[in-house]
Amino acid sequence: MTKKIAILTSGGDSPGMNSAISFLVKSALSLGFEPYLIFDGYSGIISKKIMPATKFPYNGIASFGGTAIGSTRFPEFKNEEIQLLAAKNLKELGISSLIVIGGDGTYNGGYKMHLQGINVIALPGTIDNDIEFTDYTIGFDTALNTIIETVDKLRDTANSHRRCFVVEVMGRYCQDLALYSAMATGSEILITHTNILTPEQVSQMVLEQFKKGKPSVIITVTENILPNLKEFVARIEELTKITTKGLEIGHPQRGGRPSAFDRILAAKMAMKAIELINQGKSGLAIGILDGKIQARDITEVVSIQSKKTNELVIKLNTINQN
Amino acid sequence: MTKKIAILTSGGDSPGMNSAISFLVKSALSLGFEPYLIFDGYSGIISKKIMPATKFPYNGIASFGGTAIGSTRFPEFKNEEIQLLAAKNLKELGISSLIVIGGDGTYNGGYKMHLQGINVIALPGTIDNDIEFTDYTIGFDTALNTIIETVDKLRDTANSHRRCFVVEVMGRYCQDLALYSAMATGSEILITHTNILTPEQVSQMVLEQFKKGKPSVIITVTENILPNLKEFVARIEELTKITTKGLEIGHPQRGGRPSAFDRILAAKMAMKAIELINQGKSGLAIGILDGKIQARDITEVVSIQSKKTNELVIKLNTINQN
Amino acid sequence: MTKKIAILTSGGDSPGMNSAISFLVKSALSLGFEPYLIFDGYSGIISKKIMPATKFPYNGIASFGGTAIGSTRFPEFKNEEIQLLAAKNLKELGISSLIVIGGDGTYNGGYKMHLQGINVIALPGTIDNDIEFTDYTIGFDTALNTIIETVDKLRDTANSHRRCFVVEVMGRYCQDLALYSAMATGSEILITHTNILTPEQVSQMVLEQFKKGKPSVIITVTENILPNLKEFVARIEELTKITTKGLEIGHPQRGGRPSAFDRILAAKMAMKAIELINQGKSGLAIGILDGKIQARDITEVVSIQSKKTNELVIKLNTINQN
Amino acid sequence: MTKKIAILTSGGDSPGMNSAISFLVKSALSLGFEPYLIFDGYSGIISKKIMPATKFPYNGIASFGGTAIGSTRFPEFKNEEIQLLAAKNLKELGISSLIVIGGDGTYNGGYKMHLQGINVIALPGTIDNDIEFTDYTIGFDTALNTIIETVDKLRDTANSHRRCFVVEVMGRYCQDLALYSAMATGSEILITHTNILTPEQVSQMVLEQFKKGKPSVIITVTENILPNLKEFVARIEELTKITTKGLEIGHPQRGGRPSAFDRILAAKMAMKAIELINQGKSGLAIGILDGKIQARDITEVVSIQSKKTNELVIKLNTINQN
Repeated sequence: MTKKIAILTSGGDSPGMNSAISFLVKSALSLGFEPYLIFDGYSGIISKKIMPATKFPYNGIASFGGTAIGSTRFPEFKNEEIQLLAAKNLKELGISSLIVIGGDGTYNGGYKMHLQGINVIALPGTIDNDIEFTDYTIGFDTALNTIIETVDKLRDTANSHRRCFVVEVMGRYCQDLALYSAMATGSEILITHTNILTPEQVSQMVLEQFKKGKPSVIITVTENILPNLKEFVARIEELTKITTKGLEIGHPQRGGRPSAFDRILAAKMAMKAIELINQGKSGLAIGILDGKIQARDITEVVSIQSKKTNELVIKLNTINQN
Repeated sequence: MTKKIAILTSGGDSPGMNSAISFLVKSALSLGFEPYLIFDGYSGIISKKIMPATKFPYNGIASFGGTAIGSTRFPEFKNEEIQLLAAKNLKELGISSLIVIGGDGTYNGGYKMHLQGINVIALPGTIDNDIEFTDYTIGFDTALNTIIETVDKLRDTANSHRRCFVVEVMGRYCQDLALYSAMATGSEILITHTNILTPEQVSQMVLEQFKKGKPSVIITVTENILPNLKEFVARIEELTKITTKGLEIGHPQRGGRPSAFDRILAAKMAMKAIELINQGKSGLAIGILDGKIQARDITEVVSIQSKKTNELVIKLNTINQN
Repeated sequence: MTKKIAILTSGGDSPGMNSAISFLVKSALSLGFEPYLIFDGYSGIISKKIMPATKFPYNGIASFGGTAIGSTRFPEFKNEEIQLLAAKNLKELGISSLIVIGGDGTYNGGYKMHLQGINVIALPGTIDNDIEFTDYTIGFDTALNTIIETVDKLRDTANSHRRCFVVEVMGRYCQDLALYSAMATGSEILITHTNILTPEQVSQMVLEQFKKGKPSVIITVTENILPNLKEFVARIEELTKITTKGLEIGHPQRGGRPSAFDRILAAKMAMKAIELINQGKSGLAIGILDGKIQARDITEVVSIQSKKTNELVIKLNTINQN
Repeated sequence: MTKKIAILTSGGDSPGMNSAISFLVKSALSLGFEPYLIFDGYSGIISKKIMPATKFPYNGIASFGGTAIGSTRFPEFKNEEIQLLAAKNLKELGISSLIVIGGDGTYNGGYKMHLQGINVIALPGTIDNDIEFTDYTIGFDTALNTIIETVDKLRDTANSHRRCFVVEVMGRYCQDLALYSAMATGSEILITHTNILTPEQVSQMVLEQFKKGKPSVIITVTENILPNLKEFVARIEELTKITTKGLEIGHPQRGGRPSAFDRILAAKMAMKAIELINQGKSGLAIGILDGKIQARDITEVVSIQSKKTNELVIKLNTINQN
C-alpha cells in the first residue's frame, strides 16, 4: 500500500462535502499520507483530472456548500472495462487508496473499485438520509435547516392571512426530511409513504385545525407522492374554502453553507476514514450508528435497499394537531 | 381632530409591517396620541375588531415577519355603503385618523376612507416595490435578501454540477425584484417585461457562457412572463444539452424577519406619518424619493399606474455575461 | 395521580426551550392531560404564576429563542420550607406532575420537588452541554451554529488582512462548545481545560501556521481559562509580530431561533417525558445516549459532576495544523 | 489613456468589496478594458503583486465577505518617493487607471496617485459609513444586519430573564451604525457622541422602562465613548439592581456575506466607475447622494472631515421609550 490517497465526490452534491474533503486532506497530511483530489467524480479518474491536494485551497473551502472538486454523472462507469481503466490509472499514479463521498450510486462505484483492488472507503454524502447503516448522512442536517427556515417564512404569511400551505420537500424515497422538518416546524399534517392521505382526509383535518383556533395549517409532503402538487392544492382549497398555496422547496435544499452538525459529522467521518486506511483497512463504508462513528463492509451496504420506516409519522400527526 | 389614531395592515403581508406598527404605536404615544389597532384589515373596521394598542405586545412583534394584526381580503369594501359604515364605526369610537399599510388595494381603500372624512395616511407595505412615488416599499429589501440567499444556494449546486438554473421571482408586474436580485447574484441572464427573450435566444446565451468557462448559468425571470416554467426549462435543456432545472421561489419571499433596511424604512415612515398627523395633515401617502422620506397626496398616487422601467436591465445582461 | 401536568423553565435560557414547551403541551393534550405553565421558574410556583397552557399561544412560540414562560434566579428555593410550600401550592391546584427544563440548578430543584412527592421529569436545557447522562442538551446545537457563523465572519477579515484571532466561547467548565466549534471552523489552535497552552506555545504554533502558508489563524478558547483575554491577545501579538485581535462571543450564543437539531431533540424529549408520565413514571431525567432518547433516575444525575473529557482535543489540534 | 485598469482594496475590509471587484471586472470587460487586480492594497503596487483579472475567479468571489485580493497596512505609502515608485510601476505595466476601494486612508492614497498622474476613481468600502459625500458606504448595510441579528439574540435572553444589556457597536467616530441599529432593534436607550449620558441618567431611564412594563432594556452605545464597558455595566447594575450584561459585538461586524443592499450598491458604484473611466474622467470619488450614484472631485472629499450629525438620535430615544 502506497501513501497516496485520492478523494472524489460523486452523485448529487450535499452541504458538508467540502468539509469532508478538507478534513480528509488535513487528517491524511497529519499522518504522513499524500492526499490527491479527483475532479468531477469517477469520470475524473478516466480523464486523469487528478492533482495533489496541497495545490488546492482545501482549507478555504471547508465552510462552503456544494463540492469544490465537482461531481458529474458518469453512467459509463457501469462498464467493467471503464472500471478496469480507472483502477489502472490510479495505480499508475501510485494511488492505492480511494475515498468516495456521495449517495448510493457513489457507493456502487466505490464497490466496483474495491473489486478492482483499490482500497476504498465510502462516506455518506447526500441530503436525502437514504443510506443504509447510518443514522445521518452528511448534508441532511443543513437541508433540514433550510427547510425549517423556509417553512418559518411561510408560517408568517399563513398566520397573517389564515391560510393553508402544502410544502413538498426532498428525500427521494426516504421520509426523514419530511418527518423531521414537520417535527421541527410543528407542521399540522404530514404525508409520507407510510402515511398517504387523500385530499378529502386532509381537508377534513385542515378544517378541524381551523375550528380549533389555529391561525394557519402547514401540510408537509415528501416528494414522489403527489402526482401533481398544484392539483392537490386546488383540491384542498376547493374542499375547505380556505385559501391554500403550494410550495416545492426544490434545489435550495441541496445548497448552502453546511451547518455545525454536518461539518462535525464530516470531520469525524473523515478522521475515521483516514485512521482506517492507516490501519490497513479498506472496502468499508463509514456511518454513524447509536451515536458512534462506525465502519461496515461496503459489500453489505450496497446490497441492501434502505427501508427506514418510522412509527413517528403517525404519532407526530396526532400530536401536531394540538 | 381627536387624539385617537387607528392602524391597519391590508393586502399581502410583507416583512417590516410589524416594525411599522410598532414604531407607529411608539411614535404616537411619544406625542400623546392614543393608538388603536384594527385586526384583519378593512374588514376589522366593520366587525369592530379594534383594540387600544397598549393592550397588545407592540414592542415584541417589531422583529417578526408577517403582520401580527392580520390581513384579509375584503372585496366588499368596494361597496360605498360599507365604506360609509366603516367611517361611522371609526367615528363612534372617536377615531379620527387612520394609518393604512399595504399595496395598491390598501391605498385605494385608504383613499375611500379619506373621502369619508377620515384623516388617512398610507404607508407602502409590499415586497413587490410596485407603489408609485416611492423608490422602496417596506418588505422589498427583505424579499431581495431571501432571493439572493436562495440563489446563492442554487449556485453551489449549479457550480458543482455545471448546470443551468431558471429562477422565477415575484414582483407582479414590477421588475425590481428580478433586476436587483440578478444584480446581486451575478445572474448571467435576466428576463423581465422590458427584456423578453425566446428559449432560442436564452439557449444561445447559455452556451456562450459555458464556452467562456463559466461553471454554471443562472437565469432570473420575473413572474407573469413565462407561460409555463417547466416547459421553458425543458426547452432550454433540449436546446443546450446542459442539465437545466427550474425554481419558483414562491411565498417564502413574502415572509421572514425584516432586514435592517426594511425595519429602518418602516421606522422612518412611521415617524413621518405620526408627525404629519400631529401637524393636522392627512390624505397623504408616504414614500422615499431621492433618499428622503416624503409625502404625496394620496389622490395622486392611486390615480397612477406604476410603470417603473429600467434601462439597467439590458445593461446588466451585457455586464453579467463577463 | 391527576391529569394535570405543570411545566417550567429555570436557570439560563437556551434555544429550543420554547420548542420543548410547545411539544410538551401538544403531547400532553394528545394523551388527554391538562397541561399548565408556570412562569418565571421555581419562583412562579411560590407566587402562583400558573395558567392553563391552552390559554397561552404555545404553538406560536415553538420557533422562538429564549423561554416564553420566563426564568428567574431563585436562591430561596434551597430552603426546605419553600420547597414544602411549592409542593403544597401545586397540590392545591391538583397538579401532580411537574416537568422542569434547564441545567444542573434546575435539576436540583426538580429533585427537591421529587422528594416532596411531586412526579418530576427533567429535560436538559442549556447551551453548555454540561449535563450528565446526555450526549446533547437542548440549545447546544444552536449555540454551535451561532459560534461557527461568527467565526466564519472573523475568518473573512482574518484572511483579508493575514491576521490572528483569539475567540472565547461559552461552555462553563465543559469544553464541548469549544471543541466542536473548532472542529467545524477549522480553528488552527484549540485551548481547553484538557489542553492548556502558554502564550509562548501558542505563538510558536501561530508562526508555524503562517510559515506553512495559512492566510490566517483562529485560536478557540473555552471560557474560564484565560485570566484576561485582552492581555493574552496582546502577548500573542507581541511574540508573533502578527496583528492579533480577541473576541468574546458572549451572550448571543444563548439566543436565536433554535436550529432543526435542537427543535427535534426538544420534540423527542418532550414526547418521551409525557409518555413516561402517562406510564406512571417519575423522578426521571431525560437524555439522549447512543443516539436514543433515554431516562435516568434524577437522583443519579444530580449526584454526579459531569466530567466529559475528550481525547479529540489533542487530536484536533494536530489535524487542524495542516 | 491605455485600456488597462487596476483595482485594489485597502484599509479595513468590508462586506461587498468582493462584489465591487467582481462588478468592476465584468463592467470593464464589457466595455473592452483590460482589468488587473493588485493584491494587498497599495503595498502590492510596490511589490508588483498584480495580475490580469481574467486569471482570477472574479465571478466566484462576488458573494463572499472580506476582500479576496487582500488588504494590508502600508504606512510607507505616505512617503512621496514610494508614491512615485508606485506610479512608475503602474505605468511600466501600461496601467493608466486605478480604482481604489476603502475608507479615508484609501482615499488619501488614491489622491496621491491622482497627483502622480494616474487616473484614479475611489469607491467607499467601509462598514463605518464615515466617508463624506455618500449616504451609504459599501459594507454598512451588512454590518447593520449583523448587529440586529446579534441584538435580536440578546433580546431573547434579556426578555427571558428581565435583564438589561449594554451593546457596543463599531463606527469609529460615526454614529450611524449605533443610530440605525438602535432604530431597527427598538433599543430603548442610545448613546452616541451627540447624546452622551451618565450611568446615573441611564439607570434612571432603565428603571422607568421596567416600571412601564418592558421585559428588558437594550442600551446601544457607539464605540470610543465608554472608557470601560465592563465598569459601565457594573455601575448600571449597581444603580438599578437589575442584572445587566455587556457585549462588544466586535469584528464579526466586519465580515460575512454581503447583503443584497451592499451587493447592489457595489454593483452600481462599480458600473459608474467604469463608465467614468470610459468617458475619460478621473480624480473622482463615487458616492450615493439623494438616492443617486454620483461622483465628486476626490480632492474635495479628502479635504473634509465627515461630521454627520443626526437629530434623529434624541428623537429616537424619546420614541423608543414607549
